[in-house]
Amino acid sequence: MKKTKIGLLGLGNIGTGTYKVLEMNRETIEKSLGLSVEITRILEKDTGRDREIHVDPNKFTQDPQDIFNDSSIEIVIELLGGVEPASTLMIDAMNHGKSVVTANKAAVASNFLKLREAATKNNVEFRYEASVGGGIPVLKVMSSVLRANEFSEVLGIVNGTTNYILTQMTDNDLAYETALARAQDLGFAEADPSADVEGVDAANKLTILTALAFGDYIPPEEIPTEGITKVTPQQIEAAKSRGNKIKLIARVAKEAGKVSATVAPMELAIDHPLCGVNNEFNAIYITGNAVGELMFYGKGAGPLPTGSAVLGDVMDIIEWTNRGEGRK
Amino acid sequence: MKKTKIGLLGLGNIGTGTYKVLEMNRETIEKSLGLSVEITRILEKDTGRDREIHVDPNKFTQDPQDIFNDSSIEIVIELLGGVEPASTLMIDAMNHGKSVVTANKAAVASNFLKLREAATKNNVEFRYEASVGGGIPVLKVMSSVLRANEFSEVLGIVNGTTNYILTQMTDNDLAYETALARAQDLGFAEADPSADVEGVDAANKLTILTALAFGDYIPPEEIPTEGITKVTPQQIEAAKSRGNKIKLIARVAKEAGKVSATVAPMELAIDHPLCGVNNEFNAIYITGNAVGELMFYGKGAGPLPTGSAVLGDVMDIIEWTNRGEGRK
Repeated sequence: MKKTKIGLLGLGNIGTGTYKVLEMNRETIEKSLGLSVEITRILEKDTGRDREIHVDPNKFTQDPQDIFNDSSIEIVIELLGGVEPASTLMIDAMNHGKSVVTANKAAVASNFLKLREAATKNNVEFRYEASVGGGIPVLKVMSSVLRANEFSEVLGIVNGTTNYILTQMTDNDLAYETALARAQDLGFAEADPSADVEGVDAANKLTILTALAFGDYIPPEEIPTEGITKVTPQQIEAAKSRGNKIKLIARVAKEAGKVSATVAPMELAIDHPLCGVNNEFNAIYITGNAVGELMFYGKGAGPLPTGSAVLGDVMDIIEWTNRGEGRK
Repeated sequence: MKKTKIGLLGLGNIGTGTYKVLEMNRETIEKSLGLSVEITRILEKDTGRDREIHVDPNKFTQDPQDIFNDSSIEIVIELLGGVEPASTLMIDAMNHGKSVVTANKAAVASNFLKLREAATKNNVEFRYEASVGGGIPVLKVMSSVLRANEFSEVLGIVNGTTNYILTQMTDNDLAYETALARAQDLGFAEADPSADVEGVDAANKLTILTALAFGDYIPPEEIPTEGITKVTPQQIEAAKSRGNKIKLIARVAKEAGKVSATVAPMELAIDHPLCGVNNEFNAIYITGNAVGELMFYGKGAGPLPTGSAVLGDVMDIIEWTNRGEGRK
């Protein structure tokens, strides 16, 4: 059985989750492809950490060129996070003829055009399903099953931290600070929560959704973005009294031929399907001119769900580049 | 620009919807593929009906062999409905080297193995996304983005007629007969509603979901199937008093290594996401061992949503068989 070799950049939480999913479901994955898959090299400084997985220490390297110059490696998975050095490394990998899969919304949003251009120039695949909604299938769906549609609007609850906080404020009448502290206790919010609560993370994801739905690249810094730090219990009560709920919505729509994107707390009628999306859950609500309204719902984050999406991309690339030769 | 020619079997409601979506979104579709797409031959007896679309009368034929023997046609779309002659015609088309796309759940469920075997033998594609959940992406998702998962359970509200009737009985305290009559008035139920209300349609879809999720073929007639005709207002009230709702659920799960499938009215806790799926809407709720719980929600039927899924399959096949040569 032919083996596809993979290089992994980063064995943090998401990298470890991806590695775990591959080990846990190896039989299903290899049977589905008719090919075997192995992560053969890993760029990671912290080789000693206990990750509850067995990794051959010979796989570790401190030098990304060890991966890029290894001609046996066909695919590079980038899970370092952050815009740099991740973006430069992904482009370098593609310039070495590797296909690239990433979950890194900040890098994809900031350097979407450059990354896509590197893929086209080198005739390799570049995939980033896990960058929006974690394990929830949305990007691939827009470019496959739904591709016969013209989209008019995409509404997303794409940040679990802020959705958790707003849900707690709404359902349990908590003040913002109390809800944030609870989210931090549960691991749903980081010690420095600013990228989440200020809407920056949601804006990155909206840049990616906008590119997929409308073909337009709007950099995240050009998206009018308001987070949830100014949402008061009074506003939430006032919304309730109107039969509505406040949700942090990443919205992009095409109206009169113009595509506009915003991230902001918005009032939705209580019977809108997005109002049933609570706590750390995410959902993406899409309107297409043929399919009508659709919603995709699930946990938008976490090492295993994100690993699920990363490996889905990897498997699609393997099938594509092998032109189905391993297919049953 | 290279043109892909398509033969269409059946220009009824769904066929007309598919034709409309192709005309309406031709620019988007052809730009996405880098190839042009045309339905060049149509098997249809009723050539005179007003369909609100313009069809060149020379495209019509009464003889499927005109399509199968036309070597310029690469893909056949089957939208006749019913098990036969649809199944035989699909196999015949594949034996002539055509890839086949269908929305026909009865034919796919009854002849799943034969149809798949014909595709493998002839090295062509066989796709049926539209057969479950209409325009809601679920089958492709299970075999692409989610394929790194082992699935443990799939729960579906996959029949809009019965979901409409149960919603009306639950929310408006209607008796079964009154709710059915209302569904018939609105066009959500047929004059003879038995295939829907007896659960047969849901069982067909569950056969297909089972094959995709677990690789097991369970013919629809072997699935224990109970419809909604015996659901009483008393049962609905009793469920409410326990904080639950009754929904017609197509369920397949793998428990202790054994796959079992059933269609039956089931009580779900009111905070289960499927309880928010009301009236004619459909949803599929999937649990995978990496991704966790996901739900896909939308209108499960109708000519344009179904046409959206049919053309998504067609576009995927065109991209696959052209090995991306038209890609931007």
